[in-house]
Amino acid sequence: MKQFLSINDVPDPSGLVQEALALKADPFAFSHLGKHKTLGLVFLNPSLRTRMSTQRAAQNLGMDVMVLNMDKDGWQLEFEDGAIMNGSSQEHIKEAAAVISQYCDVIGIRTFPSLQNREEDYIEKILGSFVKYATVPVLSLESATLHPLQSLADWLTIEEHKKREVPKVVLSWAPHPRALPQAVPNSFVQWLKAAPVELVITHPEGYELSNEFTVGVPVEYDQNKALVGADFVYAKNWSSYNDYGKILSTDSSWMITEKKMALTNQGAFMHCLPVRRNVIVADQVLDGPNSLVIQQAENRTYAAQAVLKRLLEK
Amino acid sequence: MKQFLSINDVPDPSGLVQEALALKADPFAFSHLGKHKTLGLVFLNPSLRTRMSTQRAAQNLGMDVMVLNMDKDGWQLEFEDGAIMNGSSQEHIKEAAAVISQYCDVIGIRTFPSLQNREEDYIEKILGSFVKYATVPVLSLESATLHPLQSLADWLTIEEHKKREVPKVVLSWAPHPRALPQAVPNSFVQWLKAAPVELVITHPEGYELSNEFTVGVPVEYDQNKALVGADFVYAKNWSSYNDYGKILSTDSSWMITEKKMALTNQGAFMHCLPVRRNVIVADQVLDGPNSLVIQQAENRTYAAQAVLKRLLEK
Amino acid sequence: MKQFLSINDVPDPSGLVQEALALKADPFAFSHLGKHKTLGLVFLNPSLRTRMSTQRAAQNLGMDVMVLNMDKDGWQLEFEDGAIMNGSSQEHIKEAAAVISQYCDVIGIRTFPSLQNREEDYIEKILGSFVKYATVPVLSLESATLHPLQSLADWLTIEEHKKREVPKVVLSWAPHPRALPQAVPNSFVQWLKAAPVELVITHPEGYELSNEFTVGVPVEYDQNKALVGADFVYAKNWSSYNDYGKILSTDSSWMITEKKMALTNQGAFMHCLPVRRNVIVADQVLDGPNSLVIQQAENRTYAAQAVLKRLLEK
Repeated sequence: MKQFLSINDVPDPSGLVQEALALKADPFAFSHLGKHKTLGLVFLNPSLRTRMSTQRAAQNLGMDVMVLNMDKDGWQLEFEDGAIMNGSSQEHIKEAAAVISQYCDVIGIRTFPSLQNREEDYIEKILGSFVKYATVPVLSLESATLHPLQSLADWLTIEEHKKREVPKVVLSWAPHPRALPQAVPNSFVQWLKAAPVELVITHPEGYELSNEFTVGVPVEYDQNKALVGADFVYAKNWSSYNDYGKILSTDSSWMITEKKMALTNQGAFMHCLPVRRNVIVADQVLDGPNSLVIQQAENRTYAAQAVLKRLLEK
Repeated sequence: MKQFLSINDVPDPSGLVQEALALKADPFAFSHLGKHKTLGLVFLNPSLRTRMSTQRAAQNLGMDVMVLNMDKDGWQLEFEDGAIMNGSSQEHIKEAAAVISQYCDVIGIRTFPSLQNREEDYIEKILGSFVKYATVPVLSLESATLHPLQSLADWLTIEEHKKREVPKVVLSWAPHPRALPQAVPNSFVQWLKAAPVELVITHPEGYELSNEFTVGVPVEYDQNKALVGADFVYAKNWSSYNDYGKILSTDSSWMITEKKMALTNQGAFMHCLPVRRNVIVADQVLDGPNSLVIQQAENRTYAAQAVLKRLLEK
Repeated sequence: MKQFLSINDVPDPSGLVQEALALKADPFAFSHLGKHKTLGLVFLNPSLRTRMSTQRAAQNLGMDVMVLNMDKDGWQLEFEDGAIMNGSSQEHIKEAAAVISQYCDVIGIRTFPSLQNREEDYIEKILGSFVKYATVPVLSLESATLHPLQSLADWLTIEEHKKREVPKVVLSWAPHPRALPQAVPNSFVQWLKAAPVELVITHPEGYELSNEFTVGVPVEYDQNKALVGADFVYAKNWSSYNDYGKILSTDSSWMITEKKMALTNQGAFMHCLPVRRNVIVADQVLDGPNSLVIQQAENRTYAAQAVLKRLLEK
């Protein structure tokens, strides 16, 4: 693997899941692989889980880690070709990406969508520029439209907890007070389509995800119908793709409650965290025995470790 | 030891002091103990000495360290049970503490008091929630009401520099322009009561510390009287406990000067730092040969190292 | 070497250049030299290249690294002797430098000029206070008036790319929208005067650097004349030294363009980065085959590594 920006960089997603499970069973088996190798983590946006899990993953492989909080350091980057830089931007992405590549063997980068300009967000303008000018492998720590490390960890969690060969997995929209990216649901659909599961999406009308990801996946607008027989309920808020970046609904009847979970096949509850309690999901569900959110967070480490291992082995 | 929140977690405070002194004599004797172990340092408030000394202590033991500045990253936590999180809080302490526990073998956390709500501060609401939901040992890097790593380092310093079996130690209030926590004096009293010293507290009326800590320790309202014959003078400002969080006095006659020190038994001057020069203490005292403030700072490393060693050995 | 604040701390600058080149050829040859040693990086101002390259250099030598962002943490230092600290300063440099020295074996520090008070800037008041009170070797990560790690990396880059024994090197002022320090040009002149090169400085009138550095180096006010026959063109903006800290010109005819470079001896283009594209230098030059800016950035690692090696060996 020469980069990790989406599932498209992974020739064998199932194989990668198995590799992550093997690393979970023996986290220090490859602790010499990363010797004298440095992972640079570049954050253009805040992060807790991704920051810590990726750092731990790198350390398990014996890598050194350097963290660069470009958002906090007020380092403003220029992304336009030909720009006359006499304004507030201090450095062009061309130099920034090439320079960081001098100090790191692998670079992880987190970017966010504008939620204003759909075209720029969906061509992954910022991540794409970074990849274009970096000279070492780049690892997405979440981009404008995808969050592949999260999806890999989610698949891992489903693999560990499934009770039948082909479980039913329901991705359900849930309300949230702020406009959020579509990265997690896009990426979840992209990965889980490749997994041995029956995938169903449910959301209010107007919240259709980009067809690029959902083609072939059934959408059920009636959440209750969608939940029937589900083995896994993956809740997540996202803002509208069609009416780009907008909040079309805050309908609390979409919150995942015990009553909703009673429709499922004793289904497990999943969420990528951070989660708004009693907005996305009721306390009873999140604190109940079928909640897998902490296991998902734990699996972030082994997802990142499997990916880093492959990038180091390339 | 399964946690370190106060002296109450330490069955043998004197033994821990001896262990710290042994580590100071041979800092890398246990440099394999922390192999493949990660210390997470979570700061809800800024820190210089604690941040660096604890990091150094962990590295001396061979641990990896991850630092999370939650205060700077604008990650707002919810602490109320049952909260409907549709406001500014992004994540509940239940998830945050459990998730961070997935990536760390030991977690150090720094919190601060509100100085508004005494009850919440003194039940250690924030630290307590963190400990409740964390699944790995927690180490206090200073909490709302206590600073046990500082007190252990202070005891260490007194042990190294005492000239008689049972030295007289005077904890003296001193003026300061801002309202400060009672954590350092509370904790100092709690630890030094267990040490082979004669402990006396002196402060203006109204500055009584919580009886929970001071019971059995003489309080002398006349600073000059208190200082007579002192072997160690530990200066510190704190805000009022009774009139909670208030500044009742900025009386500069309480500043520690050479004249004050002349009353002592050629006493040593101590302060946890940072210190306001010529407000808390006069330059002549701080720069004089009997000032131990830098030695106290140095001992922070070995205090933290002894505690981490025990947490790793548990 | 017991410190590294300027070329004056280096008995054999050419030897240090050769040592850096040797480390570049075999970066991990001394990976045990830094075992159990900690480098503290203290930033009073933001940094990308210096932060990452110095960290990488330390890790190549096997050192642990601790980073302290004093600018971000709002830790306000007092530098005046005898100050009554009842204002906003929380800690005196006397304690801060002595305390940080307890936790580190070498300290790197970045400070910036005020660009208001020339005398204070040019006596290096802040760095000087830090060095005075630190008890371990101090490494400048750029100070008010000098940037020696950058200059060493620049010399290294010229050494690697020169096509004749004594190349002509032109330091050229270029326009910029903000008032910048004189640290890079001062330091470049100070180092390159000691190198086997023909050094020429060109800038508009009023931009004369301090005579302390430029004595003996020809200044040519006609940029075109200066560039004739140049093997290396080092562009950099700085604010006025005489009319201290002021922007006297933003004349875009000083921008380095292909037309300007055509005057040179197929000269290479150099800049310390970050660089304002199409303000300091035209895209065509920066993106052209003779641009060495990324190589300069790469060489920052080996410059820092050579210096750290000497500080550890002292």
